Amino acid sequence: MLHFDTDYMEGAHPEVMRRLMETNLEQTSGYGSDDYTCHARELIRQACGQPEAGVYFLVGGTQTNATVIDGLLARHEGVLGAETAHINVHEAGAIEASGHKVLTLPQHEGKLCAEEVEAYIADFYRDETYEHMVAPGMVYISHPTEYGTLYSLSELEALSRICRKANIPLYMDGARLGYGLAAPGTDVTLQDIARLCDVFYIGGTKVGALFGEAVVAPHAERLPHFFPLIKQHGALLAKGRLLGIQFETLFTDGLYLEMGKHAVRLAQKLKQGFVQKGYKLHMDSPTNQQFVCLPNADIDRLSAHATFELWGPRGEEETVVRFVTSWATREADVDALIDLL
Amino acid sequence: MLHFDTDYMEGAHPEVMRRLMETNLEQTSGYGSDDYTCHARELIRQACGQPEAGVYFLVGGTQTNATVIDGLLARHEGVLGAETAHINVHEAGAIEASGHKVLTLPQHEGKLCAEEVEAYIADFYRDETYEHMVAPGMVYISHPTEYGTLYSLSELEALSRICRKANIPLYMDGARLGYGLAAPGTDVTLQDIARLCDVFYIGGTKVGALFGEAVVAPHAERLPHFFPLIKQHGALLAKGRLLGIQFETLFTDGLYLEMGKHAVRLAQKLKQGFVQKGYKLHMDSPTNQQFVCLPNADIDRLSAHATFELWGPRGEEETVVRFVTSWATREADVDALIDLL
Amino acid sequence: MLHFDTDYMEGAHPEVMRRLMETNLEQTSGYGSDDYTCHARELIRQACGQPEAGVYFLVGGTQTNATVIDGLLARHEGVLGAETAHINVHEAGAIEASGHKVLTLPQHEGKLCAEEVEAYIADFYRDETYEHMVAPGMVYISHPTEYGTLYSLSELEALSRICRKANIPLYMDGARLGYGLAAPGTDVTLQDIARLCDVFYIGGTKVGALFGEAVVAPHAERLPHFFPLIKQHGALLAKGRLLGIQFETLFTDGLYLEMGKHAVRLAQKLKQGFVQKGYKLHMDSPTNQQFVCLPNADIDRLSAHATFELWGPRGEEETVVRFVTSWATREADVDALIDLL
Amino acid sequence: MLHFDTDYMEGAHPEVMRRLMETNLEQTSGYGSDDYTCHARELIRQACGQPEAGVYFLVGGTQTNATVIDGLLARHEGVLGAETAHINVHEAGAIEASGHKVLTLPQHEGKLCAEEVEAYIADFYRDETYEHMVAPGMVYISHPTEYGTLYSLSELEALSRICRKANIPLYMDGARLGYGLAAPGTDVTLQDIARLCDVFYIGGTKVGALFGEAVVAPHAERLPHFFPLIKQHGALLAKGRLLGIQFETLFTDGLYLEMGKHAVRLAQKLKQGFVQKGYKLHMDSPTNQQFVCLPNADIDRLSAHATFELWGPRGEEETVVRFVTSWATREADVDALIDLL
Repeated sequence: MLHFDTDYMEGAHPEVMRRLMETNLEQTSGYGSDDYTCHARELIRQACGQPEAGVYFLVGGTQTNATVIDGLLARHEGVLGAETAHINVHEAGAIEASGHKVLTLPQHEGKLCAEEVEAYIADFYRDETYEHMVAPGMVYISHPTEYGTLYSLSELEALSRICRKANIPLYMDGARLGYGLAAPGTDVTLQDIARLCDVFYIGGTKVGALFGEAVVAPHAERLPHFFPLIKQHGALLAKGRLLGIQFETLFTDGLYLEMGKHAVRLAQKLKQGFVQKGYKLHMDSPTNQQFVCLPNADIDRLSAHATFELWGPRGEEETVVRFVTSWATREADVDALIDLL
Repeated sequence: MLHFDTDYMEGAHPEVMRRLMETNLEQTSGYGSDDYTCHARELIRQACGQPEAGVYFLVGGTQTNATVIDGLLARHEGVLGAETAHINVHEAGAIEASGHKVLTLPQHEGKLCAEEVEAYIADFYRDETYEHMVAPGMVYISHPTEYGTLYSLSELEALSRICRKANIPLYMDGARLGYGLAAPGTDVTLQDIARLCDVFYIGGTKVGALFGEAVVAPHAERLPHFFPLIKQHGALLAKGRLLGIQFETLFTDGLYLEMGKHAVRLAQKLKQGFVQKGYKLHMDSPTNQQFVCLPNADIDRLSAHATFELWGPRGEEETVVRFVTSWATREADVDALIDLL
Repeated sequence: MLHFDTDYMEGAHPEVMRRLMETNLEQTSGYGSDDYTCHARELIRQACGQPEAGVYFLVGGTQTNATVIDGLLARHEGVLGAETAHINVHEAGAIEASGHKVLTLPQHEGKLCAEEVEAYIADFYRDETYEHMVAPGMVYISHPTEYGTLYSLSELEALSRICRKANIPLYMDGARLGYGLAAPGTDVTLQDIARLCDVFYIGGTKVGALFGEAVVAPHAERLPHFFPLIKQHGALLAKGRLLGIQFETLFTDGLYLEMGKHAVRLAQKLKQGFVQKGYKLHMDSPTNQQFVCLPNADIDRLSAHATFELWGPRGEEETVVRFVTSWATREADVDALIDLL
Repeated sequence: MLHFDTDYMEGAHPEVMRRLMETNLEQTSGYGSDDYTCHARELIRQACGQPEAGVYFLVGGTQTNATVIDGLLARHEGVLGAETAHINVHEAGAIEASGHKVLTLPQHEGKLCAEEVEAYIADFYRDETYEHMVAPGMVYISHPTEYGTLYSLSELEALSRICRKANIPLYMDGARLGYGLAAPGTDVTLQDIARLCDVFYIGGTKVGALFGEAVVAPHAERLPHFFPLIKQHGALLAKGRLLGIQFETLFTDGLYLEMGKHAVRLAQKLKQGFVQKGYKLHMDSPTNQQFVCLPNADIDRLSAHATFELWGPRGEEETVVRFVTSWATREADVDALIDLL
């Protein structure tokens, strides 16, 4: 069976495992106060070009989003995001469980449109009853998006400019950031992100770590009292050094980007395979997730040989289907899948 | 100046005030345990044809919605409503502040479409990832809607049937229920509502009371432990008898419906005035709220003589404007406004 | 039957009712934007000697506490109060429902001890694990306390000094403030309170209004974005002018204090009655609530003629019992009760 | 330097690491739907003697407590625990952040007294105002407690009987359960716990795993819809199989208990060391945590050679200090520490 369900089907990159093994019986203090975590923090600051950044390590994406958003919003504010945003659809109401509304805007290939964000904020304050409504208190984007698409540098600059003008933070969910940074044709670097976003996270779970997400606040004062908030959200790992060791490894010798490139190359190869066989792409994604409209008969046929995800409920005749590669995907598996199309 | 901003610009119906005055120095126990409240409860049960109904009196609409929804939903569930639902737009995030997501569907003249509710629920459980999503745990409708429109009996029956099939409660926000029951052509009675909804509230604030909303659960066990929840939501009035006396008055000698009829008759007269002058209705409302598209020049001209609400931010050339009548509206004021058009 | 259960058994002071009646059919804008509310706000600012104060009118005490505390605390902070604090015992978990922990200290006749508050804060930050604990983010006191007792000016100054040193707000629950200000021997004035507290509320529900509490923030910026928070908490009255008219009346011609004096004089007379009959006071209260230890046999005997509250569960032989007077208590009733002892 | 700060200073038991390594590149589905997790679940059911139990794997203790308590309580209920309970002191308000109050009772060597729990519940419902108070909706105990002490079987049976009589669940926080089960003299087995508690968790983080806690509900229907709640709390690990593999290893060949025995034997040896040197125990703990009252001079002297935790803020002359052993503690280190005393 060939597995293309998602990018968290394996454990961790072998180098990550090697480091976890060789440090296993060392004794360190807990909750991220150890030297490995300290070093990982420093490496991330360097990679971002932000020597004063606040860097925090959490375990998973949903808890990271919930904790950051809770840390950024006042009680009367909500978070603006695309209707397809992970926080709006697939986090089981974690944002609302912390008391905050997700305010939605249309998605354009999974992305927010800067002009629409600007208009939303302007319209909000021009509404006479705005104090009865949830104020837009921050903007959430994902990069790559839930559809594998990417913001261009100019799109990101536009969003950043609007947020700064409105004096609200721009937050980027980087669950798959490695696959975005490694995409062919992207003009957005990690340093751009650190310059343009107020808070973002660098995803580890889906990019070579066993688990872990690194929250970066280039201006650390943007997330005051964040440590107790992490604890309150149940997102503080006792053996924090596990996160430190993993991110130290990911940010040594370019491993993070290298893994990204591997996955993206194979995903693009797979996309070409679909296109050449005449299938219709649901979205033209430059990263490691590929969305294809498959006739249900093809879905049934392929399911005997490969696993992948239906994107939403099964349609009457055809259904959008997602194929995902990762740092661990074998080229032979991609070739085998293409042969099956 | 003529006032058509809303239906809560005056105090209470004179008969309500008379009763509050004549009972003012009586001593009663607090929190709704007094005889007036007991009697009001009984009158409402009779009017609803539900002798076993749970009846609770709260102060205002937003707190009522937040408390009822909190009482009906499990933690993993959200409330389905139209995108224009009051709980989604104009309650400053009160539902989310209690931890619950508002799940939205398109509005059709302010109403939910039963088929779309059914499809939403069906699609939800057909999605393989549904346990990562907020489950539709109840349906919220308003009657009249935020646009003054009404469900027909068959529409209400369809929603009720779908909810019961899905085993989730149907909740009706009746902030302006009196104006709905009194509308010409409606085939929905209070007893229909009590038969078809699991919980609803009869609005007092906008229909002749100083304040107050009566929550009705025809099957009282649908809202277990509701009293402490009212307290927890800060919605328990110390001098509960104020609510009891008011609703006792509203439900004596048909006052509630009589007030409704008065307001609706004048609103319809006003609507005819707009239509005859050639203005475009934004919505054809059979109740006490009228929504008209007015050129901005007309808005400016009328504003010198009358007050009314812009519905949303001011448009470039024309804007949707709301005119509202109430139990207290004077016919002379309506006539004067029509003359001004 | 003589009623001494509590101070919210009647409606409102006749002058309040007269004003509500004579303004009943006036039309005003909603949510406290009317002239009456504006004037009431001004009168309270004057009475407090704080011309720039933020003044907000809410409906009841629990919702006021929940909304203010939610407005003052960051997410990682809790509110310090006496173990007997109303917010800790009798608000059905409203504070926790907003996400905040009530941190308790021992009560001394219902009061917090300034030295214990200071030690708590100092110990907290000396604990190496303090970031795993809920930070003391504000101090809650009630004046009069739940036991009818009062802070002296020097006690209040000590608390204020400690809070300002720790840079956390001091908040006073003044549900029965009128009875405190009018107590014989108190050296605390409303202007002292406004000078020493960061936020407090002037109770109307228990002191002559139908309902209503006036939140005062002498430095308005202490409660930023408080209006949408009131709405979010379901504590915004549509017909806000009802609150404005009531507080305008209470703060005209010294009515608020006059009512306080009446109730306190009768409560002290009643206390003397108990003492002269040899009963043991549970607490020596200078205000309108009196707590007496009564043998259960006496409770049963008195219950045939008077109503009053058991304070906690009934004891085996004797029980603490509360008798309360109000602005509306008749001297004849007090005399009759004393005769029954 | 000798480290006795806590029991989460190392990584995982070598056998756990070996299994993680050898399965690292296998591909499995996410979120605990894999075969390893399925098998681990089965092994735990067997060890508990509860073939129908619901078993869920979460990442850490605070998130587990918050999620389980949120799953067990209705909105108007709180959780009863000792004043020293971890949920009351060291979880940064995570329980309150989910909207629930922690109701505290005195601790007796870290434990709840069954009679006091019974009296609390009885008093609560005998209080006439109980609907204004937070209802005791469940009981939280830890075993071992935060002070390393253990319930006896008869104490646990008494608590269970009281909870069942009151129809509220008994929940055990087993963060250090392995050290409790392995303690000399305990008469409480895992099967006893599964018989007497409604929900409990078996701690992995502190007992040989990298991280992970196994929630067990012997009657699975006690935690309905628990999966989406885990997701909502941000406690769902994407690579769920990491938890499955770890717990499969812990519950194979008696490893969990074996690790417990090792740590407890060394802790008891250390305790004897303290006693023989004349130090005063703060608590006589039979498990892996030892609490000793040390003169501050001794603390300073020892700190040059060993790490350990002050328990609360430093006292004026002496301070309670905690020494902890774990599955990984070396006997030579214990001997070296004893020599230093």
